[in-house]
Amino acid sequence: MKAVQVVGYHENLRMTEVPQPQVTGPFDVIVRIGGAGVCRTDIHILEGQWAQKSGVTLPYTIGHENAGWVHAVGSAVTNVAEGDKVIVHPLITCGLCRACRSGDDVHCSASQFPGIDTHGGYAEYLKTSARSVVRIDDALEPADVAALADAGLTAYHAAAKAARRLRPGDRCVVIGAGGLGHIGIQVLKALTAAELVVVDRNPDAVELAVSIGADHGVVAQGRHVEEVLDLTGGAGAEVVLDFVGEGGATRDGVAMLRRAGDYHVVGYGENIDVPTIDIISTEINFIGNLVGSYTDLCELMVLAAQGRVRLHTTKYPLEGFQDALDDLGAGRIRGRAILTP
Amino acid sequence: MKAVQVVGYHENLRMTEVPQPQVTGPFDVIVRIGGAGVCRTDIHILEGQWAQKSGVTLPYTIGHENAGWVHAVGSAVTNVAEGDKVIVHPLITCGLCRACRSGDDVHCSASQFPGIDTHGGYAEYLKTSARSVVRIDDALEPADVAALADAGLTAYHAAAKAARRLRPGDRCVVIGAGGLGHIGIQVLKALTAAELVVVDRNPDAVELAVSIGADHGVVAQGRHVEEVLDLTGGAGAEVVLDFVGEGGATRDGVAMLRRAGDYHVVGYGENIDVPTIDIISTEINFIGNLVGSYTDLCELMVLAAQGRVRLHTTKYPLEGFQDALDDLGAGRIRGRAILTP
Amino acid sequence: MKAVQVVGYHENLRMTEVPQPQVTGPFDVIVRIGGAGVCRTDIHILEGQWAQKSGVTLPYTIGHENAGWVHAVGSAVTNVAEGDKVIVHPLITCGLCRACRSGDDVHCSASQFPGIDTHGGYAEYLKTSARSVVRIDDALEPADVAALADAGLTAYHAAAKAARRLRPGDRCVVIGAGGLGHIGIQVLKALTAAELVVVDRNPDAVELAVSIGADHGVVAQGRHVEEVLDLTGGAGAEVVLDFVGEGGATRDGVAMLRRAGDYHVVGYGENIDVPTIDIISTEINFIGNLVGSYTDLCELMVLAAQGRVRLHTTKYPLEGFQDALDDLGAGRIRGRAILTP
Amino acid sequence: MKAVQVVGYHENLRMTEVPQPQVTGPFDVIVRIGGAGVCRTDIHILEGQWAQKSGVTLPYTIGHENAGWVHAVGSAVTNVAEGDKVIVHPLITCGLCRACRSGDDVHCSASQFPGIDTHGGYAEYLKTSARSVVRIDDALEPADVAALADAGLTAYHAAAKAARRLRPGDRCVVIGAGGLGHIGIQVLKALTAAELVVVDRNPDAVELAVSIGADHGVVAQGRHVEEVLDLTGGAGAEVVLDFVGEGGATRDGVAMLRRAGDYHVVGYGENIDVPTIDIISTEINFIGNLVGSYTDLCELMVLAAQGRVRLHTTKYPLEGFQDALDDLGAGRIRGRAILTP
Repeated sequence: MKAVQVVGYHENLRMTEVPQPQVTGPFDVIVRIGGAGVCRTDIHILEGQWAQKSGVTLPYTIGHENAGWVHAVGSAVTNVAEGDKVIVHPLITCGLCRACRSGDDVHCSASQFPGIDTHGGYAEYLKTSARSVVRIDDALEPADVAALADAGLTAYHAAAKAARRLRPGDRCVVIGAGGLGHIGIQVLKALTAAELVVVDRNPDAVELAVSIGADHGVVAQGRHVEEVLDLTGGAGAEVVLDFVGEGGATRDGVAMLRRAGDYHVVGYGENIDVPTIDIISTEINFIGNLVGSYTDLCELMVLAAQGRVRLHTTKYPLEGFQDALDDLGAGRIRGRAILTP
Repeated sequence: MKAVQVVGYHENLRMTEVPQPQVTGPFDVIVRIGGAGVCRTDIHILEGQWAQKSGVTLPYTIGHENAGWVHAVGSAVTNVAEGDKVIVHPLITCGLCRACRSGDDVHCSASQFPGIDTHGGYAEYLKTSARSVVRIDDALEPADVAALADAGLTAYHAAAKAARRLRPGDRCVVIGAGGLGHIGIQVLKALTAAELVVVDRNPDAVELAVSIGADHGVVAQGRHVEEVLDLTGGAGAEVVLDFVGEGGATRDGVAMLRRAGDYHVVGYGENIDVPTIDIISTEINFIGNLVGSYTDLCELMVLAAQGRVRLHTTKYPLEGFQDALDDLGAGRIRGRAILTP
Repeated sequence: MKAVQVVGYHENLRMTEVPQPQVTGPFDVIVRIGGAGVCRTDIHILEGQWAQKSGVTLPYTIGHENAGWVHAVGSAVTNVAEGDKVIVHPLITCGLCRACRSGDDVHCSASQFPGIDTHGGYAEYLKTSARSVVRIDDALEPADVAALADAGLTAYHAAAKAARRLRPGDRCVVIGAGGLGHIGIQVLKALTAAELVVVDRNPDAVELAVSIGADHGVVAQGRHVEEVLDLTGGAGAEVVLDFVGEGGATRDGVAMLRRAGDYHVVGYGENIDVPTIDIISTEINFIGNLVGSYTDLCELMVLAAQGRVRLHTTKYPLEGFQDALDDLGAGRIRGRAILTP
Repeated sequence: MKAVQVVGYHENLRMTEVPQPQVTGPFDVIVRIGGAGVCRTDIHILEGQWAQKSGVTLPYTIGHENAGWVHAVGSAVTNVAEGDKVIVHPLITCGLCRACRSGDDVHCSASQFPGIDTHGGYAEYLKTSARSVVRIDDALEPADVAALADAGLTAYHAAAKAARRLRPGDRCVVIGAGGLGHIGIQVLKALTAAELVVVDRNPDAVELAVSIGADHGVVAQGRHVEEVLDLTGGAGAEVVLDFVGEGGATRDGVAMLRRAGDYHVVGYGENIDVPTIDIISTEINFIGNLVGSYTDLCELMVLAAQGRVRLHTTKYPLEGFQDALDDLGAGRIRGRAILTP
C-alpha cells in the first residue's frame, strides 16, 4: 500500500510502497483510512523535536489523527466489525494497568502512539487496537472528523473538565481561538451556561469565535487583561482555559483569574512562573490537560453527531501531503488540512 | 484591659491599657482570651511586611490565633452563649456575599482579619463575630487549641482537600514536618489510608513525624528526590503537600510527583516555575490552599476532641510576650508558643 | 396595607387591611410585592393539609412565591438597597447552623417559611431577610419571575443536580411536563448535552416540551415504558427526573432507568416501593430533591436573564385572588397565575 | 482434577474428576486454587434460587470467592506471571464496553460470573481472565483472603463509597455486624474519622464490632431506633449502611437517617417502601451497592496487607465441602469457611 514516511529529520516526507498491515494479535484492528489530519506536530517531528522523546526508528509512517472504516479485526474484537465507520483514538493502551482500569487510559503505563512512535495514518491502512476505535454516527464522514481524533480530543477533554465547575453566572476565559480553541468554545457552549470571553491576537479569529457562540471577544493588543477584568466585574473569571501557553499568555491569563479560580493549561511553550504567595493568597489552581480518554472521544463524537461541534477542513489527496504541509507551514489553511484516499 | 500592641514597625511590641471591647452590632461576640498563639507572621508584621497589604492604623493589638470563653454576645447571636468555650476562626466574614453563601467563606469579599487588619488577641478580650466562633469540646482547653485557629486550620484545610482523592495504595509526600506539617500528618492519618512519606531537612522533625504515624521519613540532604522515588516505585506520589514552598522545595517536590498527581501549595516564598510542556505531558495539577473555612475549623475541633490531632505548646503569661517572640525568633520553641491570661 | 389571609381551613381566603410590616431586626428586608405566584400548595393549605405541619396561627397572610422591590432594610443589610428589584427565596434561614455554613441552607435548623408558617406575599409588602433576597437583572420584571421563587427553584435544583453526572450520549427522562417539568427541561438544555425524553399523559404538554427543546416526547398511555426503552437502546436512561411521583409514575420511572442510574424524586404522592434486590442488582440510586439553596436561586436568575428559562404567566390583580385560585383549581391556567399590585 | 459440582437443585454437591482448565484465549489465566470461600449464596444456588437468573447448565463447578497462584497465562497477559499469588475478582469482564472503559467494570455488558454462571473455584484449578486477577502482598495467604473476593469486596465498595461524604463529626450507622458488616466497619475506620454506630440483633456481634473500632454498639431489641437517635443528637446519622435489608431493617434504618442523609442499600430481602413526601421533605438518598470494581479489590488488598482489614476464617479441605456447607447452614461458623487444597 501507499504510505507517507519520515525518512530522515530535516528532510521532506516521502511517499513509498509498504506492506499492508496485518492482524497478528487478538485485539488488532486494521482501519482503511478515510481521513488523516495534518497537524503542526507533524512539522515538529520532521524538525527532529520528537526524535529523542519518541525513540522511533526511521523510516516510519507519520500521521496521528485518523478516521476511516474497519478493514479487519483480531479474534477477540467484539466492539467493532468489518465495515464500521470509526475514528481512531491516538493512543493504543494496554487495558490492564491501574490507569487503564480506572478509565484514565491516557496515563496507561504501556501505551503506543501511532504516527509518533510507530506507524501512523498517512497511508491507505493503519493498524490499531480494539481499545482505540470509536464507531461514529452514520451522518459523519471520516474525512470530516479525523482532526477531532487528537486536536479536537484535547480541546474536548480540557473544556469538559473545566465545565464541571462552571455554574450559571460564572465566567470562562478562553485564550486562543485557533484550532483547539475553536473546538473548546463549541464544547463549552454545549456543556455549560457560563459566560465565555475569548481572547486572541487575531481579530478574525475573535470574530469567528463570537459567531460560534462566545459571549465576548477581546483582541489581545495590550489592554486585553484590563478588558477581561472589566467584563468580569473587576474580579476575573472563575476559569481560564489557555490554549496558547506561550508568548506571555500565562502571565496575562493568571491576571484574568478570579480568587479560587482554575487555570487550565493546554497550550505549551513557556513556563508557569508564579509566586507561591500569589497562589496561596488567592487559592488558585493550575490544572494540566493531556489529550483525552477513550470515553472523552466517545462523548466528543456524540457532540459532532448532534452538530454541536463542527470543524472546517481543507482536503488534499494523500499524494498531496507536501502541499498540505506547505500550506500549513505558510498559514494558508483555514481549519484543518486532511489527507484523503 | 491589658493589650499588647504594635506601636511602630521595627519596634518592639508594647503592653498597654486599652478600653475593653464592647458589643455594638447584632452579631458581635466578645471572647475572654484563654490562649493566643504566637506565630511567625507576628514577627513579619513587626518587620513591616504586612504594613501595606493590611493597611492597618497603628497602634493596634496583634494576635490572630485565639481561643477562650464567650464573655458577651450581640442581640442576634444564637449559636453561642456567655461562658461557652470557643476557638476563634481567624476571619470575620460577611455571610452575605456569594463566597459566604457557598460555604467558601475564606473568599468572603468583605472580611476582616483580627490581629492583622484590626485588633487581635494578645489581650484580655477580643471582639469577633458569631460567624467566627466554634464551640469546643469540654475536654479541650483554649490555651491548648489556640494555635489550631490559624496554623492548624491551614494544615487541616490542605490535608483534608488532598485526602479527597487519596485511595488505599496511593502515596502522599509531605514536605516540611514543622508546625503545619505536624498537623497535616495527623490529619492525613485520620482521613486516609494512603502511605505517607515525610521529607524535612531536620532529622529530629523527621523522627517525630514517623513517631506520629508517617510511614516513611526522608531527611532532605541531597538524595531526597531519589529516595522518595525509590519509595514510590519509581513513579512518584499521587499527592505532594508542600508546607515549605521555598529553598528549592517546589522544584524537588514536582520531581516527586506522579503523572496525574496533585501538588498542594501551602508554604510559600519561592515561585512555582515549571515548563507548561511538563505540566501537560504529565497532566499534573498545582492546587492553592488558603487557611480554611468555618466548617473546616469545626471538623478540626472534632479531630482534636477525639485526640487524633495534638499539638505541643509552650505557655507564657501575656506579660511574657517578648520572651515568647524572642524564643520563637531564636528557634527555641518546640511546637507552638501560647500567651495565656 | 391590603393582605389576603387564611382565616379558617375549608374557608375562602379573605382580603383585609393589616399593618405594613416594619424593620425590627438588623437583617430584615421589607419587599414591596411586584408579583406573588399562586400555587397548588395554596389550595392544599386551605384544605388544612399543612395545618399541623406548619403550626401556623390563623389568620395569616398566604403566598410563598414572591418578587418585588426592596422597600426598607435593617441596619446590617449590605447586599441590597432600597429600590433594588429582587426575587425572594422561600425560606428565611439563620446563617449560623451547620447546614447554612456549608451553603446547604435549605436544611437550616431554624428556618421560617413565609406564606406557610408566617406572613407571606399575597399582600402589598412582605417582610423577609437579607439572606433571602436575590437581585434580578434589569431586564426581568418581578411579576414575570415570581413563580420561579419556589416551583422554578425546585425544578432548577433537581435538574442542576442531575446534570452533574450527565455526559454527551447519556439520556435523561423527564416525567411530567407541567410547571416544574417545563422549567426542568429548559434547565437541562442549558446545562447538558444529554438527550431528553419527556413523558406526560397530556399530549399538549408533550408537544410543548418538544417545542422548547426535548429531543423526544412520549405520551403516557400504556406503552410509554416500552417506548422509552426503545428510545434508549433497550437499556434505559442514565437519569430519570420524576416531577410527578404519583399515579404509578415511580413504578414506570424505575422501569425506564438504566443500570447504575439515578432516579430523582421531585414530585410526590405515592411511595417508592422497590425490592432491595432490584436496587442492588442494578445498583441504582434514588435521590431526594427539596426546593433549592440561595445560590441555586441566583443561578436560576442568571438563566432567566439570559432568556434560557422562560415561564408563561397569567396575571391577576391582588383583589382577583379568588379568580386566580378558582382558575387554578379548574385547570384553566396555562403556565402560572401571578397576583400583581 | 478434583472439582465440586452442582449436579442438581435440591441435591447435595458432588466431588468429581473433571479435565483441568486450559488456556485457550489470549487473556486467559489459570489459577491454582489456594482458598475458596463458602458463601450463603452457594446454599441459595443449591436451593435453585439462581437457576433461572444464571441460566447455567448442570453440572458445573460452584465457588465464587477465590484466591491462589497463577498456573498458566494466555499470550496477551502482561499483568501477572506464573507463580504470582493472586485474589480473583468475581467477574470476568470484557474490557471494551462503555462501563468497562469508564472503570465501572461491575456493569460490564458482557460479563461472566465463575461459580454462578460458569465453572468456579471449588476445585484445584480455576479459569479466569487477566482482567480479574489482583496480585496480593507477600505477607498475605490466598486461603486467608479468599473470602474478601466477593463478600469483602461488596462491603469495601459500599463503605468506601459512603466514606467519600463523611467528614469529622459526621455519624455513620452500620446495620448488621455479620460478615459484610465486620469488613465494612474496618474499612470505615481506615478511611474516615466519622463516628460509627453499629446495630445488630446479636449482642456478641455488637461486642465484636466495638472491639474492632465501632464507637457505639446498639443491640436491636425494640428500642434501637431511639437509642441511635439519642447517640446522634436526636437528628440521626449522615449515613446509614444497611448490610441486612430484611426483617424491618430498612424501616428502622430510614428512621435513623438525618436530613440530606445517604441510605446505602447492601443487604437485601425486603422492599424499600418509603413515601415520596418523606424522601423529598428530608431530601434523603437511597444508594444501591453491587459488588465492587477491579480497582476496589486492589484497594481492599492494600488494606488487608496493611493489616487494617482482617477476617476470621475456618478452613476445611476441599473434600470437606459438605461439612463446611453444613456448618454454615447451622450457624456454626465464626467468620468465613474456606476450602483449601
